[in-house]
Amino acid sequence: MAASTRRQLSLTAFLMRHGHHVAAWRHPDTDLSSPPFEVIRQQVQSAERACLDAVFFADSVALTGAPSLEPLTMLAALAAVTSRIGLIATATTTYNEPYTVARQFASLDSISNGRAGWNLVTSDNAAEAANFGRDRHVDHAVRYARAREFQEVVKGLWNSYGDGAFVNDKAAGRLLDNAHVHRLDYRGEHFSVAGPLNVPPSPQGRPVVVQAGSSETGRDLAAATADVVFTAQPSLAGSQAFYRDMKGRLAGYGRAADSLRVTPGIFAVVGESVGEAQDKFGVLQDLIEPQAGLALLGRMIGNFDLSGYPLDGPLPELPVTQDGQRSRQQLLTSIAQGENLTIRQLYQRIAGGRGHFTVIGTAAQIADQMQQWFEEGGADGFNLMPPALPGGLDDLLAQVVPELQRRGLFRTAYEGSTLRSHFGLPAPD
Amino acid sequence: MAASTRRQLSLTAFLMRHGHHVAAWRHPDTDLSSPPFEVIRQQVQSAERACLDAVFFADSVALTGAPSLEPLTMLAALAAVTSRIGLIATATTTYNEPYTVARQFASLDSISNGRAGWNLVTSDNAAEAANFGRDRHVDHAVRYARAREFQEVVKGLWNSYGDGAFVNDKAAGRLLDNAHVHRLDYRGEHFSVAGPLNVPPSPQGRPVVVQAGSSETGRDLAAATADVVFTAQPSLAGSQAFYRDMKGRLAGYGRAADSLRVTPGIFAVVGESVGEAQDKFGVLQDLIEPQAGLALLGRMIGNFDLSGYPLDGPLPELPVTQDGQRSRQQLLTSIAQGENLTIRQLYQRIAGGRGHFTVIGTAAQIADQMQQWFEEGGADGFNLMPPALPGGLDDLLAQVVPELQRRGLFRTAYEGSTLRSHFGLPAPD
Repeated sequence: MAASTRRQLSLTAFLMRHGHHVAAWRHPDTDLSSPPFEVIRQQVQSAERACLDAVFFADSVALTGAPSLEPLTMLAALAAVTSRIGLIATATTTYNEPYTVARQFASLDSISNGRAGWNLVTSDNAAEAANFGRDRHVDHAVRYARAREFQEVVKGLWNSYGDGAFVNDKAAGRLLDNAHVHRLDYRGEHFSVAGPLNVPPSPQGRPVVVQAGSSETGRDLAAATADVVFTAQPSLAGSQAFYRDMKGRLAGYGRAADSLRVTPGIFAVVGESVGEAQDKFGVLQDLIEPQAGLALLGRMIGNFDLSGYPLDGPLPELPVTQDGQRSRQQLLTSIAQGENLTIRQLYQRIAGGRGHFTVIGTAAQIADQMQQWFEEGGADGFNLMPPALPGGLDDLLAQVVPELQRRGLFRTAYEGSTLRSHFGLPAPD
Repeated sequence: MAASTRRQLSLTAFLMRHGHHVAAWRHPDTDLSSPPFEVIRQQVQSAERACLDAVFFADSVALTGAPSLEPLTMLAALAAVTSRIGLIATATTTYNEPYTVARQFASLDSISNGRAGWNLVTSDNAAEAANFGRDRHVDHAVRYARAREFQEVVKGLWNSYGDGAFVNDKAAGRLLDNAHVHRLDYRGEHFSVAGPLNVPPSPQGRPVVVQAGSSETGRDLAAATADVVFTAQPSLAGSQAFYRDMKGRLAGYGRAADSLRVTPGIFAVVGESVGEAQDKFGVLQDLIEPQAGLALLGRMIGNFDLSGYPLDGPLPELPVTQDGQRSRQQLLTSIAQGENLTIRQLYQRIAGGRGHFTVIGTAAQIADQMQQWFEEGGADGFNLMPPALPGGLDDLLAQVVPELQRRGLFRTAYEGSTLRSHFGLPAPD
């Protein structure tokens, strides 16, 4: 089978300020002094040279770790200095207004000629709530009800201009044909929005919608409405179950199985030999400070303060979190119990991948794992999580991506020009 | 006196989608087919070659006229393809959250290396309200009370990182010194915001703040908090009164007179001769459709529907608008009454400059007027309002700016690198 007709992996780069490892900023090669945009620009241009589908940025509306650029403005700036790679930003449905989010992503989509993606999340912790006039975060059910309405409004607004809306007839004095300009007049429980949107329509039909919720409600919302699902799956078996579950839900919403791409995160450390990869990982592991490790673990298990517990004792019995990290809490407590890990061992375990699929080895070994997941119903692609920047990304692009290309699993040149085309997604309704 | 030491004009370019004239989109040279960002990129790069202080973009959170790019994303993209010119975006305090606005402008400021400006406005019409769950717009007093708190929160968040906050000590494992990271813990009537901001600090101390309110409340807020005031003044006498009033208010807030720049808008049509300038203007005036002229006039006088009145009759007695355009309504009704204008004549009068200072003539004549306003206490600079794009801007940059440079009134090269330095503004507290 020719490489070009073989089913292709989706590959996105999930970039964080200094890298995914909690000690990434301490790595000798991490650049703390250059302007943040210059640092990220170089990384994204590298990812584009490797033909990745997109770069992906998480977001928080509170300070966690190092201050970083706001994703929408950063991606708009990146749009002007790239030409093909997709640009996925996270924006919360909990503390934004849908008209504003719809505008900013539509604008990013126009500026980038059809390369915008929106990672829809809900905000789930007290630190974020406190920046928006609330004492505590919004309850899970309310957050998701609001999120569901929010995305309906956003998609409705993205549909403001039908074919034929732009007449552009200077002589006749007709700019728009109002018969093809759709008011939305949405009235829901959380939002009432008239429309139409005041931004030109999307070059790719509409921006790609990404979601990452793994609760029942989150999975249902993703199955009903997302184009791409990002997920934390430490094992192939778990990812296969998640994959089957997500694909299985699609039919209930009248959707084809290939209309949703499932892309687990992968925290990969690559070396010329296994030993070199382990050494690279070891450099970062040795830089973890207990305080930073505890803070990370505390956030992952539902903002629980672990500072009073002995580092070399077991994880205490935890109250089931009402925060957004409930499924991550379950994942980590089951790892800790299953392997009898101390608190220190547990934060060391998650200091890099935070519970995501983790592989430390040669490019061939990492590609083997990715190929297996891809071919055995565990993934449509991967969200690459570089340990520290820029080296962690450079290694993946220089070693793992070419290995996947040699195997015919990943493009060697962009074929389409939009993010939707990179992902092989159908045109929206 | 050497040109370099003479008091210098501030010049900004106020760009609209197709130009300021209501019929600009119908001009033969207006580009309706290229991607909107490409069109604007060329104009902003031209403005940078002419050493303008900044480009300035208005905003509306509802559709008025042609769909256009959202300013913050657009300016972030422009930041990546320019290096010196300032970038001023409008963002409303009525339907945004201060944490989000503070983040996005701080991010724009970081991306642009200190060239960001925020034009603080309140939203004042029903079309905008309907996109944010409201039946009617927020009352003037409430809008301004909210705006005042909003800018306090935003400036407080911009001040999250004191000198010494970034330790960046990899060996010691110390990224931030929390003693210099300021929580805000703001509690007001409209907002409660904890902070700190999660975006790196501003390269120019803080982004420049622009305001344009001309009500008593608006003037007081600007005198207390703005760096630059944009204003619509059709005559020198009126602008002198406004200028004196604004400068006079500063002392009451403990501010020096040069800490606030007053920049009226100027709608200028330039030709090699007066006749050529008038012909250029005539081309646009002849393209005004009554429907578009009426709609513009209706918006300017407080969203009043004029369609039932004879075009060649007088402006009817208007109810005093509760919308935000009250001072513009007063300005236009006084022009109509003073000169006995019909409805048609009034919309023709405002079709270009919408009540702003309007000059149609040669570069020397336009420069004469600007110089007089500048030297006789009417202005610290001007916000240039090109009639149609790209020609209207190109003419101003190629003819009027060089004339001002010859007179020693405007820079021929950038001296500083930040917007604050271009405006000659003092460092913020």
